[in-house]
Amino acid sequence: MEQIITFITLGVKDLNTSADFYENKFGWKRSDRSSEGLVVFQMNGVLLSLYSREELAKDANMKPNGEGFKGFAMAHNLGSEQEVNDLFAELKAKQVQIIKEPEKVFWGGYSGYVADPDGNIWEIAYNPFL
Amino acid sequence: MEQIITFITLGVKDLNTSADFYENKFGWKRSDRSSEGLVVFQMNGVLLSLYSREELAKDANMKPNGEGFKGFAMAHNLGSEQEVNDLFAELKAKQVQIIKEPEKVFWGGYSGYVADPDGNIWEIAYNPFL
Repeated sequence: MEQIITFITLGVKDLNTSADFYENKFGWKRSDRSSEGLVVFQMNGVLLSLYSREELAKDANMKPNGEGFKGFAMAHNLGSEQEVNDLFAELKAKQVQIIKEPEKVFWGGYSGYVADPDGNIWEIAYNPFL
Repeated sequence: MEQIITFITLGVKDLNTSADFYENKFGWKRSDRSSEGLVVFQMNGVLLSLYSREELAKDANMKPNGEGFKGFAMAHNLGSEQEVNDLFAELKAKQVQIIKEPEKVFWGGYSGYVADPDGNIWEIAYNPFL
């Protein structure tokens, strides 16, 4: 099994709300792989897609119920502490939910967290070791 | 904000159990970016990491409690229906939890789902349109 992730799919409560978040808060452009009911972003190598949470559960043969911490995070890395601060300022101005202000962290980097409308969390980090 | 995901981090109940799953069931090799408490796999462009669920929640300033459907899926795409069937047979032989046997799906592909020890779900798919 090759070390390949083709898609990361986020199952969302409301596709328009989530698409608005990624397109207008994060400022990303949807790919033309998007279709009715599926919004796709071409990332570095992997595709990030937004899809109905109910439909995702159904596709996987699971119950859609779930709550609390999802136990996963995505990270967006930047080139310096200043870039992290600047992006937080920009996201705050766009009313993005900040869950942790950026600070120096134990592993030697600098990071904070924001959440998307479904509580999927993004670490925004400067990692001097990357 | 560039369209970049640096890390996907899975917060896991038991790091050894999860590392065993990805290394010995999926057959992946950990990267030398791994460290005490963090197991990293170099994927296509993005890094997949395993980290304590409790510590991930703490890092994000969140409560670690959560249950049920997590509302996200990762996909591993292959080149044909036969390759999907072969991988399912291999994973079954290794006692991986199958949550949906592969079948033809509405969007024109062929896919099934398996789960890791923390219930993170992987779609294993053939998509003729990719």
